[in-house]
Amino acid sequence: MFAEILTIGDELLTGNTVDSNSAFIAQKLTERGYWVRRKTTVGDDVEEIKAVVREILARKPEVLVISGGLGPTHDDVTMLAVAKALGKDFVLCEECLERIKAFYRELYEKGLIDDPELNEARKKMAYLPEGAEPLENTEGAAPGAYIEHEGVKIFVLPGMPREMKAMLEREVLPRLGEGKFIQRKLLAEITDESKLAPVLIEALKRFRVRIHSSPKGFGKYIGIIIFGESEGEIERAKAFMESRGIKFEEGW
Amino acid sequence: MFAEILTIGDELLTGNTVDSNSAFIAQKLTERGYWVRRKTTVGDDVEEIKAVVREILARKPEVLVISGGLGPTHDDVTMLAVAKALGKDFVLCEECLERIKAFYRELYEKGLIDDPELNEARKKMAYLPEGAEPLENTEGAAPGAYIEHEGVKIFVLPGMPREMKAMLEREVLPRLGEGKFIQRKLLAEITDESKLAPVLIEALKRFRVRIHSSPKGFGKYIGIIIFGESEGEIERAKAFMESRGIKFEEGW
Repeated sequence: MFAEILTIGDELLTGNTVDSNSAFIAQKLTERGYWVRRKTTVGDDVEEIKAVVREILARKPEVLVISGGLGPTHDDVTMLAVAKALGKDFVLCEECLERIKAFYRELYEKGLIDDPELNEARKKMAYLPEGAEPLENTEGAAPGAYIEHEGVKIFVLPGMPREMKAMLEREVLPRLGEGKFIQRKLLAEITDESKLAPVLIEALKRFRVRIHSSPKGFGKYIGIIIFGESEGEIERAKAFMESRGIKFEEGW
Repeated sequence: MFAEILTIGDELLTGNTVDSNSAFIAQKLTERGYWVRRKTTVGDDVEEIKAVVREILARKPEVLVISGGLGPTHDDVTMLAVAKALGKDFVLCEECLERIKAFYRELYEKGLIDDPELNEARKKMAYLPEGAEPLENTEGAAPGAYIEHEGVKIFVLPGMPREMKAMLEREVLPRLGEGKFIQRKLLAEITDESKLAPVLIEALKRFRVRIHSSPKGFGKYIGIIIFGESEGEIERAKAFMESRGIKFEEGW
């Protein structure tokens, strides 16, 4: 099962914002047993987003999670671009409009905004690609969208981290089934990196696990993450590597 | 002038590491006047890296900065994959080998490693695509590479942030000319987002600037970044927007 992540926002391309959203989404998808094969980031541009969505769909992932560009400002164009990429009309979601109205009414009543009325900018957020299922935003105004398209489950989420995280947990993950991947992080004590590689490769052949390694400074340790479907399989892979001379310590 | 960034590493796709490298690279390229049009992240896989490098080259950016996967471990395959993507042989750089030897000798003398000798894993880092210019790594073992290929300036940098940053500053930026983009961050006080959009669009038409906006909470402010080639042009754009009723505050 493979997945892709698309994050959208000019601020990510100027380096003014570090894209922590895609790491959060990647972690949650990995835990569900998805292999995130690629992450892409483009700016707030309809043609650019449309092009990249089509490229991703052509690679046929099981899941595509898109985040960013759903707000009321003029450069929030993600939902329109997704509609265009899928060849769908861009249609008003009445239920979404009601929620957006209620949302701004509430902000107004709390004294956070001066004007509770729907203007064009706010109303824009109620448009979704035709046939999309709206995803509830418990933390903000803009709804997300869920679209099944030619076998790909597409989720369109806001870019504000608080909104994105809540929607991912409440609306996305429950639609992705019950698969679970566990990960175990270890430090391998090693003074010669070349001795580790053949042991890792052998472990990958013998056990149903994935193993990532990354250097931790120049010294004695290499960070190892073992991914597997059960604690037992991870333990067996670890024991095998220990039997071949790798010393592990807990920590990371 | 447009640029792309490619970061490589399984740890980025499992969410175990937040990709702050690409934000740093994006910021430096933006300051030099490059428009970073896309960022991509793939895992430590030769075929995957080769495929994505070819896709990027087909879009013909002026600059492609690649970061990650140059180390000694078995899953560091970036340099080989880049050679394959360009149809180049993968050849030993004697000068790089000498530097790597000296590097490990020094670590040994400082008591940081047990064995100063070159093994296959360490030697691997001295291979570059044929015709590549090695880039000095002042902070680590693995050299980077600079390759001009069909009009694209390709830079291959390590993934360890300290090594990447030093190499970017010392080896990459001096090869990108003297262009400078300045940015000014402001808060626009606004209670109706829909009033801002037409003013921004008008400012973009009148002045040689780029403007990004992003919401700051629900309340009174929208964060604005004005990019331009001179302080004067940025000031003129700001003054114009003020004349159309936008109130700015300093800060972000």
